[in-house]
Amino acid sequence: MYQRIGFVGVGRMGSNMARHLKIDCDYPITAIYDVHQPLAQEVAEELGATAYDSLKEVTANSDIIITVVTNDDAMRDIFFNEEDNLFWDSNGKTFINCATVSPKIHEEIYQAAIPIGACTLEGSMASSISHAREGNLYLMIGGDEGVFDANRQLLSDLSVNLRYCGGAGSAAKVKALVNMVMNMNTCALAEGLGLASALNLDLDMVCEVFSQTGANSRVLETDAEDMLARDHECWFSAEHAAKDSGIARSLAEECGLDFWMNKTAEAMYRRMTDEGLGDLDKSGVAELTFPGRHAYPEA
Amino acid sequence: MYQRIGFVGVGRMGSNMARHLKIDCDYPITAIYDVHQPLAQEVAEELGATAYDSLKEVTANSDIIITVVTNDDAMRDIFFNEEDNLFWDSNGKTFINCATVSPKIHEEIYQAAIPIGACTLEGSMASSISHAREGNLYLMIGGDEGVFDANRQLLSDLSVNLRYCGGAGSAAKVKALVNMVMNMNTCALAEGLGLASALNLDLDMVCEVFSQTGANSRVLETDAEDMLARDHECWFSAEHAAKDSGIARSLAEECGLDFWMNKTAEAMYRRMTDEGLGDLDKSGVAELTFPGRHAYPEA
Repeated sequence: MYQRIGFVGVGRMGSNMARHLKIDCDYPITAIYDVHQPLAQEVAEELGATAYDSLKEVTANSDIIITVVTNDDAMRDIFFNEEDNLFWDSNGKTFINCATVSPKIHEEIYQAAIPIGACTLEGSMASSISHAREGNLYLMIGGDEGVFDANRQLLSDLSVNLRYCGGAGSAAKVKALVNMVMNMNTCALAEGLGLASALNLDLDMVCEVFSQTGANSRVLETDAEDMLARDHECWFSAEHAAKDSGIARSLAEECGLDFWMNKTAEAMYRRMTDEGLGDLDKSGVAELTFPGRHAYPEA
Repeated sequence: MYQRIGFVGVGRMGSNMARHLKIDCDYPITAIYDVHQPLAQEVAEELGATAYDSLKEVTANSDIIITVVTNDDAMRDIFFNEEDNLFWDSNGKTFINCATVSPKIHEEIYQAAIPIGACTLEGSMASSISHAREGNLYLMIGGDEGVFDANRQLLSDLSVNLRYCGGAGSAAKVKALVNMVMNMNTCALAEGLGLASALNLDLDMVCEVFSQTGANSRVLETDAEDMLARDHECWFSAEHAAKDSGIARSLAEECGLDFWMNKTAEAMYRRMTDEGLGDLDKSGVAELTFPGRHAYPEA
């Protein structure tokens, strides 16, 4: 017997996770909330759920509440707003928080849930909207392992790759590390291809050699062609990359570490945002490194 | 009918290329030269060739001369030494130069060969000694395409992956780009895993997540385990990495480009050599980035 599922935040990721659970897996989606009420109304109608205009009603009408909000402030608001929040009368309820937010806020919510008798899990997603709709998320879980086990069926139904990362905050930390390394590798690739272009080499040949040697990387597969074609339609923005590399820098600084490469990658993405290129995809960093494009500082 | 093959420089790479051609492919290896004469003698005896103590005799007794020497100075010496060099009476001969040297020296030798009526090719190798012995080199060729075609059989017999990169110097440029990107990705990985360690995450789990996401790379496959285990037995030394990233920096500077990430990677490898870690494998850069190892500058 499936438990009742509520959704808080039904933007493109949240709404498609809800669609998948209802339409493909027949879970009862009972309660929907979004700060943008017409959106909540629309998704609720589509899925035969009720749109509530208070958070405590979502908790009252669900057993498991999946949250996908925009940032740390939004997370604090839905859990700690004194006038209306999800923790209201939430003993025995489970919250699965899938927004990309800081490890710290996940830890705060985890701690706050203990005296209430509620359970929390974080679900960090390394995936796109289509993966959400198809139940093919790459889903990293942080929190108590017992709570993870208790919700394994639901989490498996959302994901193609489900991974328990450790206690509260750890999934967000792993995601920060993934994006930190991805951003550095992207800047590295942009410099390699920029120099290949300056040297008038056959760029397709260079990409093929890279793919067969120590220069190979996932970002070579995903971004090299876009760098050559200057196709920077946004999947993961330069502004987002700058923010994520900054999160990694803060985590490192808290540990007393000064990481030169990560700071350099952050500086490159910050330069993009400073020069009005922040809305380009992260591949757009090649606009800084290819000769004759957006000028790089000269040697 | 195979042509006679000479070898100049029979260190670990050159001697194993010669062994493969003679033992596995039955090429006539006729002439051997090495600055270390006992070594030339030993390899010549093993392969039924003659060890010569002058370069012009190597040319006289071979049709194709494969050179694998240590650096630019050694290349200049074997081709331009006024008292004895390979170009002596070399009309109609072919030189295949497989040392890792600068694009510039390949171009110089290519130009010098034209009036003599000799042919030159550069063969840049991204491979190890066992690949040389087994004829499984990753071999990138620069030079005239007609000369490449004329020697395709021999080059194929040496390699598992044969790639024509363009005119003289271009294979060395592509190799410099490969190592430049590889070095940056290695430093990036070392920072990512160093932060994971500082955050007390399960490092095997982090490596597996990296391998399945945008953080994946060839160096993750080759170096991550060594970084965790502090196993820095040398395959490609930090000193070599510093030198190669410096070559890429020079190439970029000649093009008026200032690449921040590459300079940062070079600085990290230079720091290793400054602190006496230059003989470690490139994976040893993790000694700088993991907390509690060789100290990184504090934040």
